[in-house]
Amino acid sequence: MKHEDVFNPDCQVRLVLDRIGDKWSVLVVLALRDGPRRFTGLRTTIGGVTPKVLTQTLRAMERDGLLTRRVFAEVPPRVEYELTPLGLSLHAPIDAITDWAEAHLDEIVAAREATT
Amino acid sequence: MKHEDVFNPDCQVRLVLDRIGDKWSVLVVLALRDGPRRFTGLRTTIGGVTPKVLTQTLRAMERDGLLTRRVFAEVPPRVEYELTPLGLSLHAPIDAITDWAEAHLDEIVAAREATT
Repeated sequence: MKHEDVFNPDCQVRLVLDRIGDKWSVLVVLALRDGPRRFTGLRTTIGGVTPKVLTQTLRAMERDGLLTRRVFAEVPPRVEYELTPLGLSLHAPIDAITDWAEAHLDEIVAAREATT
Repeated sequence: MKHEDVFNPDCQVRLVLDRIGDKWSVLVVLALRDGPRRFTGLRTTIGGVTPKVLTQTLRAMERDGLLTRRVFAEVPPRVEYELTPLGLSLHAPIDAITDWAEAHLDEIVAAREATT
């Protein structure tokens, strides 16, 4: 890609980066890797997320076509979140990031300790 | 990697994700791709960044060992920022993300338009 475009605040690729660069979106994609989950399950799995932030993240991801929200006509109603094929395709770049983080964690921790 | 670890707020890989998931850090890595730059050059290249946020981003990246800050004894003093080998190694995962964003931009824009 032409990386110079991404420096423009109006660049649409940058808008997408804002979304998938969001930590909570990444964790939701990872939490939905093995199939649909309910809100409570996601909230329990993703340590440190507040209900408000999780709701905002799920709404934004639904709006971007990354996941679907299915309501089952049960009593009480059951709601499940599931990645779309577009959302599933995010696993490749996210794996590249998490693999990098794991491979270089020691170097980063050492650098942080050297400066404190 | 064992993705389940990343759901723990204390997971060190997650701390790294917070940093490299930051939009401004990604843009700094891209802006330093072709070699060292001065603060003013970075600020001009990265549209929309404030001096304060750019300073904070550069300091955090220096602390994490991703870039170096070199001061040249000139009048007025010249300061250059340059990626370390660790910082340069970020290009692979960042390219994976930006390539994904460019490849799927149309789908995301279409999804956003469908819901508004």
